[in-house]
Amino acid sequence: MSSMAKKLQIGILGASGYAGAELVRLLDQHPQAEISFLTANKLAGQSMSAIYPHLARLNLPDLIRIEDADFDRADFVFCGLPHGITQTVVGDILKSDGGAKVIDLSPDFRLRDPVDYMEWYGADHQATQLQDEAVYGLTEFYREDIAKARLVANPGCYTTTVELALLPPLAAGVIAPENIIIDAKSGVSGAGRAVRQSSLHSEVSESLIAYKIASHRHTGEMEQELSAAAGQPVTISFTPHLVPMNRGILATCYVTLAPDASLADLRASLTKRYVDEPFVHVTAEGVSPATHDVRGSNLCLLGVFPDRRPGHAIILSATDNLVKGASGQAIQNMNVMAGFEETLALQQGPMMP
Amino acid sequence: MSSMAKKLQIGILGASGYAGAELVRLLDQHPQAEISFLTANKLAGQSMSAIYPHLARLNLPDLIRIEDADFDRADFVFCGLPHGITQTVVGDILKSDGGAKVIDLSPDFRLRDPVDYMEWYGADHQATQLQDEAVYGLTEFYREDIAKARLVANPGCYTTTVELALLPPLAAGVIAPENIIIDAKSGVSGAGRAVRQSSLHSEVSESLIAYKIASHRHTGEMEQELSAAAGQPVTISFTPHLVPMNRGILATCYVTLAPDASLADLRASLTKRYVDEPFVHVTAEGVSPATHDVRGSNLCLLGVFPDRRPGHAIILSATDNLVKGASGQAIQNMNVMAGFEETLALQQGPMMP
Amino acid sequence: MSSMAKKLQIGILGASGYAGAELVRLLDQHPQAEISFLTANKLAGQSMSAIYPHLARLNLPDLIRIEDADFDRADFVFCGLPHGITQTVVGDILKSDGGAKVIDLSPDFRLRDPVDYMEWYGADHQATQLQDEAVYGLTEFYREDIAKARLVANPGCYTTTVELALLPPLAAGVIAPENIIIDAKSGVSGAGRAVRQSSLHSEVSESLIAYKIASHRHTGEMEQELSAAAGQPVTISFTPHLVPMNRGILATCYVTLAPDASLADLRASLTKRYVDEPFVHVTAEGVSPATHDVRGSNLCLLGVFPDRRPGHAIILSATDNLVKGASGQAIQNMNVMAGFEETLALQQGPMMP
Amino acid sequence: MSSMAKKLQIGILGASGYAGAELVRLLDQHPQAEISFLTANKLAGQSMSAIYPHLARLNLPDLIRIEDADFDRADFVFCGLPHGITQTVVGDILKSDGGAKVIDLSPDFRLRDPVDYMEWYGADHQATQLQDEAVYGLTEFYREDIAKARLVANPGCYTTTVELALLPPLAAGVIAPENIIIDAKSGVSGAGRAVRQSSLHSEVSESLIAYKIASHRHTGEMEQELSAAAGQPVTISFTPHLVPMNRGILATCYVTLAPDASLADLRASLTKRYVDEPFVHVTAEGVSPATHDVRGSNLCLLGVFPDRRPGHAIILSATDNLVKGASGQAIQNMNVMAGFEETLALQQGPMMP
Repeated sequence: MSSMAKKLQIGILGASGYAGAELVRLLDQHPQAEISFLTANKLAGQSMSAIYPHLARLNLPDLIRIEDADFDRADFVFCGLPHGITQTVVGDILKSDGGAKVIDLSPDFRLRDPVDYMEWYGADHQATQLQDEAVYGLTEFYREDIAKARLVANPGCYTTTVELALLPPLAAGVIAPENIIIDAKSGVSGAGRAVRQSSLHSEVSESLIAYKIASHRHTGEMEQELSAAAGQPVTISFTPHLVPMNRGILATCYVTLAPDASLADLRASLTKRYVDEPFVHVTAEGVSPATHDVRGSNLCLLGVFPDRRPGHAIILSATDNLVKGASGQAIQNMNVMAGFEETLALQQGPMMP
Repeated sequence: MSSMAKKLQIGILGASGYAGAELVRLLDQHPQAEISFLTANKLAGQSMSAIYPHLARLNLPDLIRIEDADFDRADFVFCGLPHGITQTVVGDILKSDGGAKVIDLSPDFRLRDPVDYMEWYGADHQATQLQDEAVYGLTEFYREDIAKARLVANPGCYTTTVELALLPPLAAGVIAPENIIIDAKSGVSGAGRAVRQSSLHSEVSESLIAYKIASHRHTGEMEQELSAAAGQPVTISFTPHLVPMNRGILATCYVTLAPDASLADLRASLTKRYVDEPFVHVTAEGVSPATHDVRGSNLCLLGVFPDRRPGHAIILSATDNLVKGASGQAIQNMNVMAGFEETLALQQGPMMP
Repeated sequence: MSSMAKKLQIGILGASGYAGAELVRLLDQHPQAEISFLTANKLAGQSMSAIYPHLARLNLPDLIRIEDADFDRADFVFCGLPHGITQTVVGDILKSDGGAKVIDLSPDFRLRDPVDYMEWYGADHQATQLQDEAVYGLTEFYREDIAKARLVANPGCYTTTVELALLPPLAAGVIAPENIIIDAKSGVSGAGRAVRQSSLHSEVSESLIAYKIASHRHTGEMEQELSAAAGQPVTISFTPHLVPMNRGILATCYVTLAPDASLADLRASLTKRYVDEPFVHVTAEGVSPATHDVRGSNLCLLGVFPDRRPGHAIILSATDNLVKGASGQAIQNMNVMAGFEETLALQQGPMMP
Repeated sequence: MSSMAKKLQIGILGASGYAGAELVRLLDQHPQAEISFLTANKLAGQSMSAIYPHLARLNLPDLIRIEDADFDRADFVFCGLPHGITQTVVGDILKSDGGAKVIDLSPDFRLRDPVDYMEWYGADHQATQLQDEAVYGLTEFYREDIAKARLVANPGCYTTTVELALLPPLAAGVIAPENIIIDAKSGVSGAGRAVRQSSLHSEVSESLIAYKIASHRHTGEMEQELSAAAGQPVTISFTPHLVPMNRGILATCYVTLAPDASLADLRASLTKRYVDEPFVHVTAEGVSPATHDVRGSNLCLLGVFPDRRPGHAIILSATDNLVKGASGQAIQNMNVMAGFEETLALQQGPMMP
């Protein structure tokens, strides 16, 4: 594509959250995309720089109400709306004149089965036909379908982190589908910019707490994908913890090796699977992935370790929840859908310290 | 004991670390104890307030070399020395004229079996007879032996946190001794005041990393005590993580319920065991223990939760690694050994925020 | 007072904020006081432990509405209400049968002049007669009046930190009343538990910002007291900064030495003034006061340093904003008013790390 | 320059510090530069990824000893050595066959006058002729000289932050050269990766402290440049504080307006001066620059505020100490020296949260 070509026009719905701001930060580095509109109903009329001064130097359109967004002008629409809302909006976007495609960062279209959606979100899905059409946006695993999709369901942050660690060994049959325990830890930006007591600095800093113990909604997504990889139903134990930092997820996955499989087989299942992937790397033996080694980047670092219990192993997975866990992967998916180099706008390395 | 009685004379070996400073902070609140000498070989000659300005208002003796400590003047000696050193010193203390008793915060006397010591510390124990005599200082479980002991081995910080969670249900037979997985998270003060790159603010802050994966030395201690409670050898998977905060340990313990046991049985095994304990509390159903709810105090908070996998459960345990995980429990043990109220000097509540 | 004496009955209005929780934490250590009622209108009916699990082990009354508080049962009422509210309530408390005394942690009664109140708070004072009666609660400077007072206006956190540094040298005439610049930095707990975007961990952590630049309301209080000490009107430049930590204030005060005064005179004005004070200490020459050296305690640390500009000096002052800057000083004042040892419940040393 | 042109060959001396790692992170985004060698004498033989896992995906040369660096192969050499060392090395680099140019991140060549160097660094300068030749690398002010220079002295982090705020109004005569007080606050990465007790997480986190009060070495640099701008000797009061965060500097500058100057004049002196600058921005009226609004970027944000004292004003300046305060400005200078677009490799926006 020539650099003279018209840039892709991008709309962002629900742009006032951290994932929205992160989309803007990253898209600013994209040579083939430019932002056409930004919506945030409660803040409509304000400039993006008023609510995010770090974006002040960019030449951004003011925030508007979603009703005022001209979907016809968009090539791609990123949806950063709360769950339950996107499913009521997506139909209109997909029907727009310009044939806008949608990348949904909410959980609305991640679960293929309406029954699962009801189980985890406690409500009937409002767009089951689109739910059926939506492609699950774990780029490394659904790339071909994503390339052809109109509607991509960007995976959750915990989900991305866990699935990148577990799908290859499950698919390769080197780990057992039973007794998978995932102890995940996240920085507080995963809770978004919503103003809640539990996200206050005085509550979070210098403390650590487990929440939604073995009951977090991302479990449904994980089980859907892990089951598909294993070829049988997989029930996992997933418990997230809130860590006093802003960005980063570390998932510590306790797994059982398959009867004939060794730790080397497990490691090989990951290194082979990701050898050509730009964003997923297996650390050298003995190197423990730290979240500061992915911070700000679209990378996922995987580490493989022996357990003390024979026949078991531990897989560590680290991502930046706002990048590979949200906005970075969304842009990665856009690149795939638009036929671009997959790494456009995502070349920035991790920032440490 | 009348308030006119002579106060106990306390010596602290290796007083320059955080555990030493914490002993001083807490002992200052003790009505029946006063500090007689403080050693720190590299810093001998300096005042404690020079290295810990927060202790400046106290009237403390200057730091001296261990060789210059007069053990005869001490009723109790706390040892905060690196592992391997205490075992070469304790004999002299115990032989002192005043009959000084020793509470060792190092791991030197925690493992009863010299073979275990060799396995985990890679060296022959230098005082196996004392190793045999030493009483394991998990106060809630060895109170009677501690009361009669000359030498108490204060448990490790991770160990204390984990054992308080797992000993009662194992002893009661409500959880299985197999497949116990402990995912622990600690603030950085657990690494002490040693000057290492991995403890720098720029390395720790805004990051999260697992270390000594399924191979941490505290595993040996835990297995010793868990095996004793279970009445059979127990092999656990224990992995610690470094969390960007100063104080606090949270252990997330994944356990299997015994064939006939329910979650209620598990909860009951803990609530009954600790009903009269001043420092160990089981949270109300659904309340997740946060480390800021124990910070600065000698408390351990335990939470019991259902797992998503039937027949399994999750026990959470939170402590302040410097208090119940080190100096607080050491003073608790001193109180027991001296026949005092066990809570003396340990009544300060958690500090939050 | 015999330990058999009936304990003072304490009420706390607006107990759900951090200052309220800190009052509870500290009063738990008070041998002569017990909590009679706790109000929090929005959370009435809840237990204190539900909103502050770190207080769960205490036997506290449930939160009630202020209308349901029985002031007759209280000997002391601490008011932790938002400004503008206390002045509408205090009259009723003071008229109660038990002769309850009031210690107000809000700014309502700190400014003696209704004109100043209007200037800084933008409203007419609703209880000017009580405003006249109220005693300013900087304990070290108003101890005698406090002992006789019914209504004490506890100073602001910044104010306390700054006044302890500047009142003695101003009163002694060793610094000039002109061109006093105070650059103050505070942890985020100073903003209370109010749920605001600017207090979110993701906004505060890893950042630093100045706010209310040369226009913060505590300026009025400071100028009132500094002017009184100087014997002439003093106008200061006071700018606070929000620091990514929970507790602690550091005020860096840039002052001009009086024509004949030396740095030694300045230092002497402070050391002499505070030689007998239990909570205010001047650091040794060259020792810079860190907030972690006062954290959790009622201490104020003062440091005196030469400026590079001849004839100028720098005074540093560190406090814990929730203790000496709020709840600790309030209890200190209660002790004075009740004729107790001033240090009761305030003996806990700083917690570091 | 065509994209086919041979890329500039870059050497980095002292690459193991944070500034070195940051150079690597940023240069990875540079389309016209590639790293030729990296030195770190104590770590020679190790890979960069071994000491900085976040750089593992880059294809970097291993660390070598400075003696083994082939200066002939370099077009540009960045020196990140401790002060006093660079001055002994630079001569050799400049004499190399390839005509390598040097950008020195150490303070060795920042002070033009050997007397000043002796005053602030306590030693004779070892290369006074080069000291005379060196160009001061505050890009926005020495751009033309930098373009012609062989040796550029990259300014200090505090210095950059302060000079960008104060040079324009001093040069324009809208502020007085007397009584300039600078209260600066920095994240801990400013102390580098050196392993010191004062940089430990447990010492830094949840605390705040002033250091090198009115005596920090960067004062010399500031006074050199401020004096040049003012056309008369300027003596300032500069005090830095260590803030519990990794990156970021905020300088709060208290200034006196010139007799006839208004706040609007002050603001205009800055907005006019920087209107065409890509990296220096003046915030909208009333907007306080936060360090998270520059984090990870080469930006400097300036805010102008009225003081409460008539005739005075407050200027706030925020930078990322590792980018505009060190490695980013170094690359900016390289771009100028090489005739590139000044913003190459420096287009990444701030990362928030």
